Amino acid sequence: MSHTAMSTQIQLVRRPIGWPTAADFRTVTVELAPLAAGEVRVRNEFVSVDPYMRGRMNDARSYVAPYVLGETIQGGAVGRVIESAVESVPVGAAVLHQHGWSDVVQAEAATFRVVPEIPGVSLSLRLHMLGMTGLTAYAGLTAIAGLKPGETVFVSGAAGAVGTAVGQIARLLGAGRVVGSAGTAEKVALLTEKYGFDAAFNYRDGDVSGQLATAAPGGIDVFFDNVGGEQLGAALDAFNDGGRAALCGAISTYNSSEPVPGPSNLSNIVTRGLKLEGFTIGNYLGLAPEFQSLMTEWMGSGKITFDETIVDGIEHTVEAFLEMLRGANTGKMLVRVGE
Amino acid sequence: MSHTAMSTQIQLVRRPIGWPTAADFRTVTVELAPLAAGEVRVRNEFVSVDPYMRGRMNDARSYVAPYVLGETIQGGAVGRVIESAVESVPVGAAVLHQHGWSDVVQAEAATFRVVPEIPGVSLSLRLHMLGMTGLTAYAGLTAIAGLKPGETVFVSGAAGAVGTAVGQIARLLGAGRVVGSAGTAEKVALLTEKYGFDAAFNYRDGDVSGQLATAAPGGIDVFFDNVGGEQLGAALDAFNDGGRAALCGAISTYNSSEPVPGPSNLSNIVTRGLKLEGFTIGNYLGLAPEFQSLMTEWMGSGKITFDETIVDGIEHTVEAFLEMLRGANTGKMLVRVGE
Repeated sequence: MSHTAMSTQIQLVRRPIGWPTAADFRTVTVELAPLAAGEVRVRNEFVSVDPYMRGRMNDARSYVAPYVLGETIQGGAVGRVIESAVESVPVGAAVLHQHGWSDVVQAEAATFRVVPEIPGVSLSLRLHMLGMTGLTAYAGLTAIAGLKPGETVFVSGAAGAVGTAVGQIARLLGAGRVVGSAGTAEKVALLTEKYGFDAAFNYRDGDVSGQLATAAPGGIDVFFDNVGGEQLGAALDAFNDGGRAALCGAISTYNSSEPVPGPSNLSNIVTRGLKLEGFTIGNYLGLAPEFQSLMTEWMGSGKITFDETIVDGIEHTVEAFLEMLRGANTGKMLVRVGE
Repeated sequence: MSHTAMSTQIQLVRRPIGWPTAADFRTVTVELAPLAAGEVRVRNEFVSVDPYMRGRMNDARSYVAPYVLGETIQGGAVGRVIESAVESVPVGAAVLHQHGWSDVVQAEAATFRVVPEIPGVSLSLRLHMLGMTGLTAYAGLTAIAGLKPGETVFVSGAAGAVGTAVGQIARLLGAGRVVGSAGTAEKVALLTEKYGFDAAFNYRDGDVSGQLATAAPGGIDVFFDNVGGEQLGAALDAFNDGGRAALCGAISTYNSSEPVPGPSNLSNIVTRGLKLEGFTIGNYLGLAPEFQSLMTEWMGSGKITFDETIVDGIEHTVEAFLEMLRGANTGKMLVRVGE
């Protein structure tokens, strides 16, 4: 027997200009209809807030369509089935989906993916190390940057969800030296003490090029960029000939209402024979099986560590999103939905 | 019997800041010693002036070492052997070499390459369509940008030596649409009327992005950049998803004494999954045999046209170089040495 249920959802009502504000969103609580044939109802446990979502709030051409005003913000979430009209997705099953910012979601069963539960491993990891975040790090280092053993890797935004994955995966793939930047002294300490980076620095201390040169005295071969702006400029200064950049994001520019000029040393791309390649993980899902296999093995043998910065309550999702954009998180920023 | 002979040579005596001036160079006339064992003496017919030479005048790390102050400027030249101590490089042979800006040059025979003479084809073509210039165009379109049949190609600096080669080779490799930019109305007309470009525009008329959008209404897939600066920005605006840029040069920035900020739309690299790759032809010499074979065939069947802008007299080499940097040439800028 299917029942009605309430669902609290966060929707975009206005396209932010510069930094988003609370007035760009609304929280609605709607009554869900009884389950139709083919549907399941899921109570979310964790909802993801990610940098790329800021881009979807603009009405701009990009690799994913802009969010539709007045509709619930789409994105990764994990939860558990609480009602089901489909045998293959039974009540109690853990599921991963893209229905986004809500506490309870109801939709076609095919839009949910049942994920195996790993003893001792929180379902939340499906939203980072064991999910798109880890795959993004892996694809960027392998398919895009072609990391070779012994090379030096520089990661910007290294204490974030993708950054902590990049640093550890780079090491496991044989990088000779791994350096990272972050925006607080605490994060910088964490990079070398917990995440195994050989050197790290605080980009807010200024002279990013100088700090990078000190951290990587032999130059860098691979740059995994989550930040853009002056960190890209510093990487262009530090690149050895034939260096490769996997450009994953540019969080430093997402909330600029004015155009931000690029670095003034782009001519190094020619003179040093560099390759800069942007990528979005949607084009590299074919790497998921090999990544899943490697990451499961690495996690099982204790070779991967991670942090989660958790905000409780679906009603605080916008705050969590904004805090993430400001860099308040270490590791993955998540909203825990609770009962 | 070997004789002494006079050689007039152009040397760099001061590193230019911004635009080079005559005072950065000196012209010396030296007496060459009688030929030693293993040497040949060559009277140049054509000496090349190329954009990359501006970079070598700086004391900056690059793919080729900076020019040494007080030494003769090195670079491509073609001539004919006038004395020889080596049987395999006989008097009268046409040779290609890198000894640069002089009328008569004497050196180890191994530093000269004997080139076959093609009836009706000027030796000067070894310095452009049949030489490094053509190979640069070919390597950029194939190995770097991976041009596929039917795609739209945009070439900046399209009326220059490399640009005219890129436009024609792109068409011969199956490009669906070829558009180019140049700096005068005359050059723009030449691109469509002589070189077979589908559309062309004058970047000095402003709104480069708007002009490119009009010239390539379906967007661009491949960008071959000789210019940098705002043309790179326009290309980033025009790229279709998965676009590739072969960055060959950035002549717009070579004479800037102040840093020139990059374009403000670099984030398109991420959102559209673009690849920007700089290259220097020295790393792609392996493509020379296939290129030589194709280009010889294309030229033989009248499929390639070209222009030469010729300055007479080795003593005018610096002027020719500066005129080339200012864009005064159509096609290849050359110095004809004369008797």
